[in-house]
Amino acid sequence: MGLPGNLKVAVVGATGAVGTEMLRILEARAFPVDELVPLASARSAGRTIRFDGREVAIRELSLEALRGADLSLSAAGASIARGFVREAAAAGTVCIDKSSAFRMEPDVPLVVPEVNPEALEGSPKIIAVPNCTTIVAMMALAPLHRAAGLRSMVLSSYQAVSGAGRDGTRELAEQVEKLHDQVEELGRPDLDALPVGDVFGKTMAFNVLPKIDSFAEDGSTGEEIKTVNESRKILGIFDLDVVATCVRVPVPVGHSVSVLARFSRAITPGEARSLLEEAPGVELRDDPANGVYPSPLEAAGRDEVLVGRIRQAPDHDDALLLFACGDNLRKGAALNGIQIAEHMFSTG
Amino acid sequence: MGLPGNLKVAVVGATGAVGTEMLRILEARAFPVDELVPLASARSAGRTIRFDGREVAIRELSLEALRGADLSLSAAGASIARGFVREAAAAGTVCIDKSSAFRMEPDVPLVVPEVNPEALEGSPKIIAVPNCTTIVAMMALAPLHRAAGLRSMVLSSYQAVSGAGRDGTRELAEQVEKLHDQVEELGRPDLDALPVGDVFGKTMAFNVLPKIDSFAEDGSTGEEIKTVNESRKILGIFDLDVVATCVRVPVPVGHSVSVLARFSRAITPGEARSLLEEAPGVELRDDPANGVYPSPLEAAGRDEVLVGRIRQAPDHDDALLLFACGDNLRKGAALNGIQIAEHMFSTG
Repeated sequence: MGLPGNLKVAVVGATGAVGTEMLRILEARAFPVDELVPLASARSAGRTIRFDGREVAIRELSLEALRGADLSLSAAGASIARGFVREAAAAGTVCIDKSSAFRMEPDVPLVVPEVNPEALEGSPKIIAVPNCTTIVAMMALAPLHRAAGLRSMVLSSYQAVSGAGRDGTRELAEQVEKLHDQVEELGRPDLDALPVGDVFGKTMAFNVLPKIDSFAEDGSTGEEIKTVNESRKILGIFDLDVVATCVRVPVPVGHSVSVLARFSRAITPGEARSLLEEAPGVELRDDPANGVYPSPLEAAGRDEVLVGRIRQAPDHDDALLLFACGDNLRKGAALNGIQIAEHMFSTG
Repeated sequence: MGLPGNLKVAVVGATGAVGTEMLRILEARAFPVDELVPLASARSAGRTIRFDGREVAIRELSLEALRGADLSLSAAGASIARGFVREAAAAGTVCIDKSSAFRMEPDVPLVVPEVNPEALEGSPKIIAVPNCTTIVAMMALAPLHRAAGLRSMVLSSYQAVSGAGRDGTRELAEQVEKLHDQVEELGRPDLDALPVGDVFGKTMAFNVLPKIDSFAEDGSTGEEIKTVNESRKILGIFDLDVVATCVRVPVPVGHSVSVLARFSRAITPGEARSLLEEAPGVELRDDPANGVYPSPLEAAGRDEVLVGRIRQAPDHDDALLLFACGDNLRKGAALNGIQIAEHMFSTG
């Protein structure tokens, strides 16, 4: 695969948790950036970030600042994305957007390059990066789906605090700092004086919170609705029987999913392991006899989604259980976006 | 309910995480202990523990030490339990055992008093306390099962480190101490120097581990097998279609379960809420519009199992999703055992 050597690349939200990963991954993969335009809020404008050995000034996000960019990699939130993506795309910039703003738009492909690269045909100008949990689940399930036809999925997640951005990690770190002596001395935090922060609304340290994003009318959270809808769109199975429960855990980096998947035909753990061993972007970690199974800290900093704990559901030869972990900032966000860009600008 | 006033009560494993809770709960509920016999390993013998305002000497566990006890509440592990329970029961002591040693024995009832108190009829001498995760799940599901007939259950757990005893909590606290500056400064632990402890085998702080107990041949863990088998025995549905994935999370106290349950007839979240509101030992925490949902730290130190996040599974009017949290040391262990004792010795 060849890439042209003269791309003007904007990174929107360049100072955030995902934006920082984008810069590091662009460098590491030697993406052909001729001119980097790091964009952020007015608050960060004027500061510099280091890229490829140079200091580059951060500018405030605007259509003017994006003018002439071949590519915009955006890690900003949905409301910010709504304010510039359609216009920038109309002006000719390929906009790869991590926010939820455009994911379900019929004219916007929602892409995990290893799963549905065909959605990139026809040179779309806006491409949405799926939700981080969905990406991890799809990386594990798509190779099995291609072989055996996914019929249903029951998913419970274990999601890192960095999914809520740098503030999420900061809030966890502050609460851990406050409570860890109590855990050491009393075996638990002082339950009468639990700290509550702005990001998570309840104590996040030493706790799990079954709420990510806001609640919808039916009692689901935004995150759960995204996981359901995006899984259907990525796989192209619009009536896929899928339920999700999304839970935040006190882990800094690395999203995990516990999945029960049913297929259209019988499939054994052995066949699933063979399929996943061959799947690009997946690393099989499934050797229970030798204590090999995935965990989120092992996936952190890695490109691959780790998959293990593959088991037959008892009495169901068409159903498998599995556990998958991925770096939510990398494959769950920044890396997936840059892989899309590599596909889009490939000259090969 | 009346209780006789002259019971000789042995607490086996009196110095451990669950044993300590047993002593506190016996005091708090004014259980009629005439003579307390705290038993532990030889290592702890001779030390004293405080009970009801007195210092009581700890003795080494032996059949001799148990002689004449009306009741043995045991928080010891399975291999220790196998060494004394049958003999003590034959000598007339009612043995309420928290270990997994006898749970699946056909002649031993496995009891959650709110769920299957009828299993205590006939004055059994050995009664097993279920696995902590199973208790939390059964407390949430039994009231719904009685009304609508449980057909299947898909469970993923979020289990506290104290389920592995005091050493589990200590290992988490030590690792958190070591890593929390890194998380504060770098946003994550140093992935090249992750601490590994004896209890969990991988880094437990800032991580989740989908392995509790050892692996069986089919790739399930002991904990998962217990959850499946014990749920079937407690509910008396020996062909219940149930799968479990058990995951350790860096939470000191409080086990949580994410459950998809299917019933024999249609059931709405509204009906489920009404049933759970009336259920003894359950506290409904399910008002998403007002941010009310359960978390393990809110369940810690409480007798009740908290249940919330009740939702209809889309397109399945017979299936509900829910999330439940319980104190694994109290309702998941010590309290449940003492409630069994109250039933057994009730004169009412």
